[in-house]
Amino acid sequence: MLPSSVLITEEGPREGFQIEKGPITTDRKVELIDALSGTGLRRIQVASFVSRKQVPGMADADDIVARMKVVPGVDYTALWFNDAGLERARVTGKLTLEGKVRVYPSEVFMKRNINRTPEQHLVHTHAEIERYKELGIPVRDASVSNAFGCNFQGDIAVEKVVECVGTLMALAEEHGMEYEKIGLADTMAWATPVTVKRVIGAVWDRYPDANLSLHLHDTRGMGIANAYAGLEMGIRKFDAAVGGLGGCPFAAHKGAAGNVSTEDLVFLCHEMGIETGVDLDALIECAMLAEDVVGHPLPGSIKQGGNLARLRASVRAGASA
Amino acid sequence: MLPSSVLITEEGPREGFQIEKGPITTDRKVELIDALSGTGLRRIQVASFVSRKQVPGMADADDIVARMKVVPGVDYTALWFNDAGLERARVTGKLTLEGKVRVYPSEVFMKRNINRTPEQHLVHTHAEIERYKELGIPVRDASVSNAFGCNFQGDIAVEKVVECVGTLMALAEEHGMEYEKIGLADTMAWATPVTVKRVIGAVWDRYPDANLSLHLHDTRGMGIANAYAGLEMGIRKFDAAVGGLGGCPFAAHKGAAGNVSTEDLVFLCHEMGIETGVDLDALIECAMLAEDVVGHPLPGSIKQGGNLARLRASVRAGASA
Repeated sequence: MLPSSVLITEEGPREGFQIEKGPITTDRKVELIDALSGTGLRRIQVASFVSRKQVPGMADADDIVARMKVVPGVDYTALWFNDAGLERARVTGKLTLEGKVRVYPSEVFMKRNINRTPEQHLVHTHAEIERYKELGIPVRDASVSNAFGCNFQGDIAVEKVVECVGTLMALAEEHGMEYEKIGLADTMAWATPVTVKRVIGAVWDRYPDANLSLHLHDTRGMGIANAYAGLEMGIRKFDAAVGGLGGCPFAAHKGAAGNVSTEDLVFLCHEMGIETGVDLDALIECAMLAEDVVGHPLPGSIKQGGNLARLRASVRAGASA
Repeated sequence: MLPSSVLITEEGPREGFQIEKGPITTDRKVELIDALSGTGLRRIQVASFVSRKQVPGMADADDIVARMKVVPGVDYTALWFNDAGLERARVTGKLTLEGKVRVYPSEVFMKRNINRTPEQHLVHTHAEIERYKELGIPVRDASVSNAFGCNFQGDIAVEKVVECVGTLMALAEEHGMEYEKIGLADTMAWATPVTVKRVIGAVWDRYPDANLSLHLHDTRGMGIANAYAGLEMGIRKFDAAVGGLGGCPFAAHKGAAGNVSTEDLVFLCHEMGIETGVDLDALIECAMLAEDVVGHPLPGSIKQGGNLARLRASVRAGASA
């Protein structure tokens, strides 16, 4: 049942810099992105083009992209939430532009966060897709926010998530789109391995072709266990953040961990014989660099615990010496 | 396959205080133990009676036990490695005295750590058991050290672990002992969910009645995922340490995480519908107290991320208001 390989989208730069207090210079942000480009990661989300006032850590998104090196074979992506943001992303000329559609099983969160009813959101999403069509930008990415629970609504019924994926599938059908991934996002860290399996199983029972991925936060320490549960279900696509960048602003207490750490996820995969294409030692160096760039320890474990592959090699070298 | 309840042995005081640089006053150590006694935990390992010179953090083991409160229904245990240590534990009059036998699948570790060949260790263990018989102390506890890998020997063959459990079963048969647990210890954090399942499966294929438990370290961030793999296999007994105390002295880098954190494990169990008998909120308070006692942050996550049960209750209260 375990996949033979997985595709990891590195979201550390985007998730991290938008939340870190900083200030962090553009050069240091670019330094981390450039280092990540050399690890074998094939997708890196580098910035979000949002309000400079509301998200000061991303005010230099344009400069970040302008200065970063583009390594062939790596897709660099970004987020935006309106035409102005998309235009900023487009003019960089260096990003893979992909439209993204979002559904929200938590109606309380939707009301609170984007002030729409489900009906209003559907109208909005159709309009967004039409706009992408006009601009010739393919919609390849979809996400189900708070798929496992929400601090404002509580537990999310599995059937509600299935219904949300149904909405996405209907949109794809109607507009002739094909998603490269439908991300089940554990935005507020409510998932446990059992709910991960339950939700994925229920979605695939109904939509066996849904190209599911997992976007996991480690706020309650379940990130790697949830990823493992996803792998056991056959999930082949994950988002993650180097070092565990992106401490969640929704957590109950300060200092809560952020996204599941990319290097810990890569370690898990490699130890299980699952290919990632990533050089774990190089990625661990990036995690240490990320700590230096943000100026405080990050939660990822393997950068402290050490790569077993390296330890095995040194044990073998010692034994044969 | 998931168990309906699990028994957790809290090892934070013993694992933590023997490693923490400190100095930590005896009163503060006792404060943490007394707090743990009020959480619903049924087994707490409070001290090790070892060389005061070699393990200064446990030099006050006698005083710790003398001052701590004994709560009915809680078993307080300790470690020792010779008659002198056992005698110190015995005279406290407050501990549940249980003999423990140990096997080492890593012969390199055994040679390095206790300077014995497997044959010498077996002779030693027989003698230990005879000594426990003389003293009227039941041998209830067994452990397989480095069951998943060893920094000095590398990966441990599954068949080697099965053989070690076989040695323990033969000892039990010969001496008329019954183990309350046979702990598979991931002493140096080599385990992943896949090896956890593989080893447990192989042992139970051969010895279906072996009363297995897991002693997990989180040095490489796999602790909770490994515990989940154990639960999926039907493991009902775990060791853990509040806050994740016990940073591993074998880790490749400084600042490595210690044991799997008790409160994160309890959270995982409760969210999966598995009873622990533990009040998670009270245990989270203990984890915060543990941080205060040792004077630095501890790796456990849920103390930062917050108990979902509490969040659910507040969402419900808000919805009905």
